[in-house]
Amino acid sequence: MTQYIYNFGGGSADGRTDMRNLLGGKGANLAEMASLGLPVPPGFTITTEVCTAFYDNNRQYPEGLKDAVDKALERVESIVERKFGDAEKPLLVSVRSGARASMPGMMDTVLNLGLNKETVKGLAALAGDERFAYDSYRRFIQMYSNVVLQMDHHSFEEILDTYKDDRDYVLDTDLTAADWQAVIVKYEAAVQAELGKPFPQDVHEQLWGAIDAVFGSWMNDRSKTYRRLNAIPEDWGTAVNVQAMVFGNMGDTSATGVAFTRDPSTGENHYYGEFLVNAQGEDVVAGIRTPQNLTIAGRQRQGNEDPSLEEVMPETFKELTAIFQTLENHYRDMQDIEFTIQEGKLWMLQTRNGKRTAKAALKIAVDLAEEGKISEEEAVLRVNPAALDQLLHPSLDPKATRDLLTKGLPASPGAASGKVVFTADEAERLANDGQKVILVRTETSPEDIHGMHAAVGIVTARGGMTSHAAVVARGMGRPCVCGAAEVRIDKAGTAFTVSGRTVSAGDQITLDGATGEVFFGAVKTIEPELSGDFAKLMVWADKARRMKVRANAETPLDAKTARGFGAEGIGLCRTEHMFFDAERITVVRQMILARDATERKAALDKLLPFQRDDFRELFTVMRGLPVTVRLLDPPLHEFLPHTDKEIEEVAQGSGIAVDQLKARAKDLAEQNPMLGHRGCRLGVTFPEIYEMQVRAILEAACEVAAETGDAVVPEIMVPLVSMKKELAFLKSRIDAVATEVFADKGRILDYLVGTMVELPRAALIADEIAEEAAFFSFGTNDLTQTTYGLSRDDSGAFMPFYIREGLVETDPFVSLDPKGVGALVEIGAERGRQTRADIKLGICGEHGGDPASISICERIGLDYVSCSPYRVPIARLAAAQASLSGDDD
Amino acid sequence: MTQYIYNFGGGSADGRTDMRNLLGGKGANLAEMASLGLPVPPGFTITTEVCTAFYDNNRQYPEGLKDAVDKALERVESIVERKFGDAEKPLLVSVRSGARASMPGMMDTVLNLGLNKETVKGLAALAGDERFAYDSYRRFIQMYSNVVLQMDHHSFEEILDTYKDDRDYVLDTDLTAADWQAVIVKYEAAVQAELGKPFPQDVHEQLWGAIDAVFGSWMNDRSKTYRRLNAIPEDWGTAVNVQAMVFGNMGDTSATGVAFTRDPSTGENHYYGEFLVNAQGEDVVAGIRTPQNLTIAGRQRQGNEDPSLEEVMPETFKELTAIFQTLENHYRDMQDIEFTIQEGKLWMLQTRNGKRTAKAALKIAVDLAEEGKISEEEAVLRVNPAALDQLLHPSLDPKATRDLLTKGLPASPGAASGKVVFTADEAERLANDGQKVILVRTETSPEDIHGMHAAVGIVTARGGMTSHAAVVARGMGRPCVCGAAEVRIDKAGTAFTVSGRTVSAGDQITLDGATGEVFFGAVKTIEPELSGDFAKLMVWADKARRMKVRANAETPLDAKTARGFGAEGIGLCRTEHMFFDAERITVVRQMILARDATERKAALDKLLPFQRDDFRELFTVMRGLPVTVRLLDPPLHEFLPHTDKEIEEVAQGSGIAVDQLKARAKDLAEQNPMLGHRGCRLGVTFPEIYEMQVRAILEAACEVAAETGDAVVPEIMVPLVSMKKELAFLKSRIDAVATEVFADKGRILDYLVGTMVELPRAALIADEIAEEAAFFSFGTNDLTQTTYGLSRDDSGAFMPFYIREGLVETDPFVSLDPKGVGALVEIGAERGRQTRADIKLGICGEHGGDPASISICERIGLDYVSCSPYRVPIARLAAAQASLSGDDD
Repeated sequence: MTQYIYNFGGGSADGRTDMRNLLGGKGANLAEMASLGLPVPPGFTITTEVCTAFYDNNRQYPEGLKDAVDKALERVESIVERKFGDAEKPLLVSVRSGARASMPGMMDTVLNLGLNKETVKGLAALAGDERFAYDSYRRFIQMYSNVVLQMDHHSFEEILDTYKDDRDYVLDTDLTAADWQAVIVKYEAAVQAELGKPFPQDVHEQLWGAIDAVFGSWMNDRSKTYRRLNAIPEDWGTAVNVQAMVFGNMGDTSATGVAFTRDPSTGENHYYGEFLVNAQGEDVVAGIRTPQNLTIAGRQRQGNEDPSLEEVMPETFKELTAIFQTLENHYRDMQDIEFTIQEGKLWMLQTRNGKRTAKAALKIAVDLAEEGKISEEEAVLRVNPAALDQLLHPSLDPKATRDLLTKGLPASPGAASGKVVFTADEAERLANDGQKVILVRTETSPEDIHGMHAAVGIVTARGGMTSHAAVVARGMGRPCVCGAAEVRIDKAGTAFTVSGRTVSAGDQITLDGATGEVFFGAVKTIEPELSGDFAKLMVWADKARRMKVRANAETPLDAKTARGFGAEGIGLCRTEHMFFDAERITVVRQMILARDATERKAALDKLLPFQRDDFRELFTVMRGLPVTVRLLDPPLHEFLPHTDKEIEEVAQGSGIAVDQLKARAKDLAEQNPMLGHRGCRLGVTFPEIYEMQVRAILEAACEVAAETGDAVVPEIMVPLVSMKKELAFLKSRIDAVATEVFADKGRILDYLVGTMVELPRAALIADEIAEEAAFFSFGTNDLTQTTYGLSRDDSGAFMPFYIREGLVETDPFVSLDPKGVGALVEIGAERGRQTRADIKLGICGEHGGDPASISICERIGLDYVSCSPYRVPIARLAAAQASLSGDDD
Repeated sequence: MTQYIYNFGGGSADGRTDMRNLLGGKGANLAEMASLGLPVPPGFTITTEVCTAFYDNNRQYPEGLKDAVDKALERVESIVERKFGDAEKPLLVSVRSGARASMPGMMDTVLNLGLNKETVKGLAALAGDERFAYDSYRRFIQMYSNVVLQMDHHSFEEILDTYKDDRDYVLDTDLTAADWQAVIVKYEAAVQAELGKPFPQDVHEQLWGAIDAVFGSWMNDRSKTYRRLNAIPEDWGTAVNVQAMVFGNMGDTSATGVAFTRDPSTGENHYYGEFLVNAQGEDVVAGIRTPQNLTIAGRQRQGNEDPSLEEVMPETFKELTAIFQTLENHYRDMQDIEFTIQEGKLWMLQTRNGKRTAKAALKIAVDLAEEGKISEEEAVLRVNPAALDQLLHPSLDPKATRDLLTKGLPASPGAASGKVVFTADEAERLANDGQKVILVRTETSPEDIHGMHAAVGIVTARGGMTSHAAVVARGMGRPCVCGAAEVRIDKAGTAFTVSGRTVSAGDQITLDGATGEVFFGAVKTIEPELSGDFAKLMVWADKARRMKVRANAETPLDAKTARGFGAEGIGLCRTEHMFFDAERITVVRQMILARDATERKAALDKLLPFQRDDFRELFTVMRGLPVTVRLLDPPLHEFLPHTDKEIEEVAQGSGIAVDQLKARAKDLAEQNPMLGHRGCRLGVTFPEIYEMQVRAILEAACEVAAETGDAVVPEIMVPLVSMKKELAFLKSRIDAVATEVFADKGRILDYLVGTMVELPRAALIADEIAEEAAFFSFGTNDLTQTTYGLSRDDSGAFMPFYIREGLVETDPFVSLDPKGVGALVEIGAERGRQTRADIKLGICGEHGGDPASISICERIGLDYVSCSPYRVPIARLAAAQASLSGDDD
């Protein structure tokens, strides 16, 4: 026969911590503590299988359950030497839900069950405290009536308030035992009046009513919603825990408290916790009385005069801290513990791995490893890579007051305060004057880059997590809030409004790029402190890691940052970002608006030295490492002149008439630039552009090799390939330029020619493309756009709605979609290797810095991930974790 | 030992017609004719394997070849009783290439080989005609020197011209035998002068020179280019045919001619051909003398007085026509035949399946089947579906003179003449006055539809084969030329220019949508005639066909056309096309610009009766058949008001201020509308739009069922799904509306809810989507766009270059890309069936009417294809052919 009931307490237990699926989290942990010989109030767990059977069988319990419950109850009775329903020594129990995954507050709990008109007297006698007993009974009536009998809790609150008002009582503590008895009479009358039957006096009826209610709460609306939002399957079910009650409110030798075995805020290795004498758990939470510190050191740190548990109950304190050690050693992690002391006897009510700040997580993991409690690899697995962001960027002082203006998307982490500016030029001007500014734009474009650089933070009204502003800000390590849709910038560009409030240029605002919040005024920020623990963890991570981590970087500054953070090369250097500089853009425009190859060549000849210098600087920083350079990718029209002045400049530079330039610019406009004349399509139709770029790359590489004696390995990447012939066409031209350059320079360097795999077709025909490509870099930003048919720039109109309605769980531009986009990456990787077993495979989309996506990359077996410089440490840790998790398979 | 040489002639042959790969087309057919006992001049074929070996082995022939050639030559000598190089009875041979696939004019040929200073005398004696012999010899020198010795043919032409000028000769026929002898001396001197050695007199040297030259010509630039353009592999190689010469120019009992066993122009079952007495093949082609008809009936039909072969050589004619029958019966198809009569003796030089017009192809296939020579299924396979277009649309009179203005893409077949107009309104106005107009636009938009309808043809300067203009024109059956890039419409819209020529509004132009040509002035057109043969062939095709054929249609007129052409349902009814009508567009705009659901609902309530009436009309036409209705798909901004007047109209209708409307319209503009807020993303964010449409569909279906007693099966199609939850979200709403409508109408109808699979992700997760979808319709237009990352509207900037450079062989928007897009269709179909074995699968992109794509659909096992009404017959035939070809596997 299936075992429906698992007993615990009294020095033993049927269950174990690894039986979480069957017993729920709470039941499994209680069993584990009991097995360890810890003082756990005895009780039993009705399994999740009963819950499943209950729902499968039209809300009927399996046969034999009643008998099993009776038997388990008898066991509890004999351990605590009390009897359920007994008038003299009554056993009271709690009935609590306990699911496999924590669902805090979603399901029901009943405490003090087993009280009735008779047993309450026994409780009073046993406790020597009549007031306590009747207070407990009225609490039970209130809770049971609400949870089990479905009565509105307001009815009871009204009775109590009226009773207190009539007597000019203010606090509940003003009520005496007699008062509570009088209230109970009114409570019972209210139950009779509403339900037409008395409050149940039969303790077994009470028990089954509570069990029904807890199982029933698995299917209440709250629980269903919570499960939907957290992807918890319905068929997991909940367990029910029935446990003997213990009381921290039975006088001055009783107490209740919560504790952490280490400081959850800093991670320091000292006990941390609070307790209240003569109180129940809810009193600690309610905050009416100020709890006391657990330890002498603790209260001294806080300057608290109230005596600590160490002083008040030194013996119990010793017993408790011994248990802390036992539990931490047993679970090999910092524990979050609940305990109650009833008349001097310590009872353990709960233990679990404690939540902690990012800083504490890092310190605890490193300390545990150094104490020999966990391995270095386990330490690596213990730190959430995403939480590292907190450690790498300034954050808002949690104590500072805030005046929330609006909320957008948390596009680039970090916090910053500054004066509002609305144009890139103004940002640069004020920054040059030494002022801190925040650039506020409807959206940004490549021409705003100098302003973004000058600003300490960026806010945009439109655009998603991978909009231009977000991508560039993350690349620069600037905090950024995107898509703050309520922000409306006035036409004159002198102020913005947010639901009626106006913020003018020059006003101070603060943004938190980790939450997406924007505040009015300056909010104090805290600078990050990187401890030695961080460096230690990174060393361990690097040992565990299989994939390389590279950075997406174009400027020498970014490259230096990346190298400082441990990047092992550049995975994506976007050459077009080098084109927006003020002194180049006019020449770039001449190139684009050229009417034929000769005019284009003339412009390209002017650009060549600029590009070569860019690469020389970059390659000097990155010497000794591989650098993947993507040839020009964006649609030509991104570079088009917009204003008459800009057109005039191009006209002067190129000698082409203004009218002709305007006509040509109009010709180049596209309906869907993302799907238009860009990437290798430019390279194929205007081969001279890529030829110039390849020449600049290879000449620079040769010069750096000559100067420093240490070369980069240029990996020349052709973007947006969808057909093998495109790559073949361009590769032969690239190789021809290489031959020329090497002859000119008298030096032959290693270089690779490969491609971005960023279109579904490229992934599907990767076997063919690999005939021409020495490497693939999966450009999962564009691949996500085309696989979903979804423009990043335009998804703002509906994606927030989709996320709110639960149609998508995570934005596919933030975390790689495993079923669609990930499947194409896998197909591409497999087929690429079919043709060329040693093909180098990497990812250079924004996903390269996202831990969940990095885990997919590890599973697929990519050689490296590439991400923005500031995410390199996160990627190193995530890659290590992915590598370690993969080992378990 | 490998057999390098295959003999033929003299009543037998080593080869057969099915040895085309080894012997080339010409060699295989000569062998076949010889085997049939037909009088073929004897000869032999050096196989394609020799060619391959020759190139594999550094241009060395395999061992033993020389001996084999000598032996084969001896066999020929003994059959014709002449000797190669013999001074008295010299054997002359031709040396010709003959590859597996016809490569007309690409490779080299040498005739009259075996002539030299001695043998020419023997030839003269044998023929009794000295002039003929020396003329032959000088032709040989000319041809051999050019083909084999690589001399420029101008040298010889100059010698001959000078010779004639000196003697005041005008025509070659003015030269006597002595003259030719004199010319030959000069020719030989020229060879000696240029090459430093005499013209080869050794006939074996001549022969090997010619064989070398023919094999060598396989790798000349012409051949390479031709192969690249026609996807012929290099390693197929060519064969070389060496054959005894026969002469049609040996007096009045000699003749040469070409014949078809049926009329290649009309397909009628009478002999068709021409001959010239005392002439060589090249004289027939050269057109200096007018050839005579083969038959009495033939010359009477043409009103030709010259006697026919039937009259001139009745015996030979009888022999020839008996051979016609033999060959046609043998090859079971109309034959294209070359023959020569040498001194009364008939020789067969070539037979092959004859090229024919579309009309002839149809008639011949049907006749052959009815004559019992081929089966009905073979008849179905004999007609090229694409050629049916010629039979279904008007075409230009081939005899009419033309003045070509420019050329664009052949976007929609048919020819039309009319007056140039530049706006849709003007087109409608003039058409209402009974004038024929051609609408010329830079590009068209949905608001031009009434003008396209009013016009007899459409020309656009921009856009590809699947641009708006092309798609709509094909749907309406209007001829259309798209992407005529040279056309520049002036700003005033009163004229356009094409490379300097100006065409004004009101000028007549003519377009040929089958070729993409645009002519100045009115060119006479021929109306199509659909014979009974067409109907017969369609009946046979329908018997053979597995896939159903549906049409893409919205209007009752299109639906009627489609049903008339045999459509078995509607596969795509684009509801948005119903929104552009003048009386609706303002209401549609109110709906789009609505600021909230209430305003939107108000507009939708006004639209509901319009939509319901549309569907009622459509469903009445289509009763008894399934109709797939796609819910609103295009980006909202496609409907936005552009002009101030339009905005004013919306403001009046909706009560929203003009300024607010403008701001809202600006908000709705998108960067990449193709990847934006469209399709089911609209349906999810504004569910009331689809609810209105579903109500209109189902109410109309109920009403038509009530009126006619015959219902359609509405297949409600949700567009642009990329996640299962989108479809689940909408399906529950669709089903809810259905329940309401059926309750209101007191009638329950069958209906299906399904989705377009038009995004890569939808194909990849088709197993999940099929949980919600009763059918998939592959929207391969959009799927091609996203798989390639290629916008149809923007591909014009580079696609023509790609096609010209051979980077793509066919435009993937015209013919389904099998490797990428086709692979996704296959994945989608497989995964869909995994979940739902009976899921209905169709295709509704433009590819649904393309024979090559239809063949892919058959292979994947789709249930139906859907195409524009005018392509339904083509699709029926192509589907039948795909079905029949599939049976062979």
